[in-house]
Amino acid sequence: MGLVVQKFGGTSVADATKIHRAARRAIKTKLDGNRVVMVVSAMGHTTDHLLALAKQITHNPPHRELDVLLTTGEQVSIALMAMAIAEAGERAISLTAAQVGLVTDSVHSRARIKHISKERIEAELQAERIVIVAGFQGIDPVGEITTLGRGASDTTAVALAAVLGADHCEIYTDVDGIYSANPRLVPQARKMDQISYDEMLEMASLGAEVMHSRAIEFGKKYSVPIHVRSSFTDNPGTMIVESTPGMEDVVVRGATLKEDLATVVFTDIPNEPGVAARIFSRIADNHIVVDDIMQNVHSGGTRATIGFSMLADDLPAIRNIAEILQREIHFGGAEITEGVSKVSVIGIGMRSHSGVAQKMFEALAESNINIRHISTSEIVISCIINSTDGQKALLKLHNAFALDTLPISVN
Amino acid sequence: MGLVVQKFGGTSVADATKIHRAARRAIKTKLDGNRVVMVVSAMGHTTDHLLALAKQITHNPPHRELDVLLTTGEQVSIALMAMAIAEAGERAISLTAAQVGLVTDSVHSRARIKHISKERIEAELQAERIVIVAGFQGIDPVGEITTLGRGASDTTAVALAAVLGADHCEIYTDVDGIYSANPRLVPQARKMDQISYDEMLEMASLGAEVMHSRAIEFGKKYSVPIHVRSSFTDNPGTMIVESTPGMEDVVVRGATLKEDLATVVFTDIPNEPGVAARIFSRIADNHIVVDDIMQNVHSGGTRATIGFSMLADDLPAIRNIAEILQREIHFGGAEITEGVSKVSVIGIGMRSHSGVAQKMFEALAESNINIRHISTSEIVISCIINSTDGQKALLKLHNAFALDTLPISVN
Repeated sequence: MGLVVQKFGGTSVADATKIHRAARRAIKTKLDGNRVVMVVSAMGHTTDHLLALAKQITHNPPHRELDVLLTTGEQVSIALMAMAIAEAGERAISLTAAQVGLVTDSVHSRARIKHISKERIEAELQAERIVIVAGFQGIDPVGEITTLGRGASDTTAVALAAVLGADHCEIYTDVDGIYSANPRLVPQARKMDQISYDEMLEMASLGAEVMHSRAIEFGKKYSVPIHVRSSFTDNPGTMIVESTPGMEDVVVRGATLKEDLATVVFTDIPNEPGVAARIFSRIADNHIVVDDIMQNVHSGGTRATIGFSMLADDLPAIRNIAEILQREIHFGGAEITEGVSKVSVIGIGMRSHSGVAQKMFEALAESNINIRHISTSEIVISCIINSTDGQKALLKLHNAFALDTLPISVN
Repeated sequence: MGLVVQKFGGTSVADATKIHRAARRAIKTKLDGNRVVMVVSAMGHTTDHLLALAKQITHNPPHRELDVLLTTGEQVSIALMAMAIAEAGERAISLTAAQVGLVTDSVHSRARIKHISKERIEAELQAERIVIVAGFQGIDPVGEITTLGRGASDTTAVALAAVLGADHCEIYTDVDGIYSANPRLVPQARKMDQISYDEMLEMASLGAEVMHSRAIEFGKKYSVPIHVRSSFTDNPGTMIVESTPGMEDVVVRGATLKEDLATVVFTDIPNEPGVAARIFSRIADNHIVVDDIMQNVHSGGTRATIGFSMLADDLPAIRNIAEILQREIHFGGAEITEGVSKVSVIGIGMRSHSGVAQKMFEALAESNINIRHISTSEIVISCIINSTDGQKALLKLHNAFALDTLPISVN
């Protein structure tokens, strides 16, 4: 008998009609001969509504109390889902994180899962119930209520699938799979049948907001096949799986555009041990998340240029930090640029194929797009360009790497 | 150092302004040198909103899941209250029933408290925090979420006050105390400074909906002084306390009117052992709550008349039961009367004073009000009359017993 974990996001449980639809899908999966565990998010805009309530009380809510507040959203959803399944004549039971025994560390608002007990869920499955688990929430070892971070119901689902040894984890959402690029920006974007965990991880961190990154990491770590699909159709979506040798034949699988970035370049820095550490620890202390870092040396290796990209929202904070660092380190200057975006191409095939970077740069040059910064990792090449060129660049790269056509194996 | 439990009902935490007001009150009580435990209800109409959500899903929700759903209302309130107190610079912590260890039996939607752990609350009080406990909710011995019945946050508060040995329990509400009669019906009704548990219990069951009956029972059982007062003023309200000999000098303390009743009279019943039991067990099996029962015998004690009052809402069910009973018991007939109300006078002084019934009947006669049924208990006399006479009767009795004047001790 199979075991399937099905996760329904906020848009998939936004109202009574959608809750009933999700309930029918779980019941069908059960009647097809599977044991079924559902993970549900808060309905629609519930979390935003709760955050707005908190904001009416204070602009600086304690994270512990914010977690107590926000976890009610998922608790409402699990109860309603259990009612919907009962209404349809099937057996179901809702479980909070405390009732499951989903234990996290004690870092409120971004806790990490430490341990999940199987006992209660397995007993309920044994009793032929559909088990409905509240996503996003946990309890710490002393029973304090925690949350796993915004969008982390995906993580709850994949972690449960891993612990329970599920055949696969289905992520039901309002899109019908993972696309070669954002279909709102690239009309000819193609839905992929499958993608590797590594590629999906890069796509997610590069702005493809279909899935929570940590969920993909869990999937990769515990080899849980993840099926991202629409809650409104029966069409198959995209399977996120371990890479196979055949998958590497496709050199580039997707392209992304990350907007609203800024870059900072510290020029003429003394290139001594510890200088980069000093710069980035001060930035991290101010809770600014750095995107990509690019460093070069000059003057015989004695001086360096360090550049990095970041969200434009954090610019006011970075200006203060730059002034402080200037006094401490005595570098040439801090050149801050707003209005930039990052285009990237992603593919595990890059590991074994050369010429991808060259092809990317040529394509951008053909469209007369100037490249400000370049950074690469094992399976990603990114270029920072002017925001005004962003969409044009994404379309050009999608076309240059023929992402709209079915990948053809070169074997 | 004193210990005070303060309960804030739904109207007292209905929005951010009111939550801040309640927070200030708790902080002031703490700064006055007390340890403070707050019990809060769900905000305003939250519970009704959640019930409406459930109704969109099913008209027959499992009680277990209804409890999972409804307890979110109080969880939202405790988190927001903790945020409000933190915003004001004081220390506070919110606790769910599971975190407190407020253990009930397993009867969902009307669970009874079995045990309350003091450890967590006392540790938090020791750490100089204001402790905010979710009202209305509990967990059963295996960790299932339960609720104590509508309006039962009062019960949570008084039970906590009993367990913690609080000096008193303050019930903050939208009225400023207990009145000699409903002020909406009797403009000259007087707010009482104090009332005994027994009188308050009768007042509550006779339709004075200020407090949950079970909370008063807890107060009586564990001698917890209960202070019912307005959350919007600093005026003292009404203390609910143990009766003292002096209190019995007041013969009648309050008068009530209970409307929307019906009466059923079974005539010419064989007066044999077990007949009454048979009638009322069949009624109870159908979950009909009987109000007062009045029985008389005639024909040398061989035949009886049994009458009882009940909510008019249950009339359709009672007609069926009457038909079934008629076939089983062969009595004369079932006379069902709609459109009746019950006026009552309440006072522990009745125990030691005579003539109260006579005075009541005379007062009603003076106003030309016909009495259909009479029932009495140790501290209550009730008359069932036509609904059209209800308000007139209440005003007359309030006046006849001089309830608008300060009780004068006859010692």
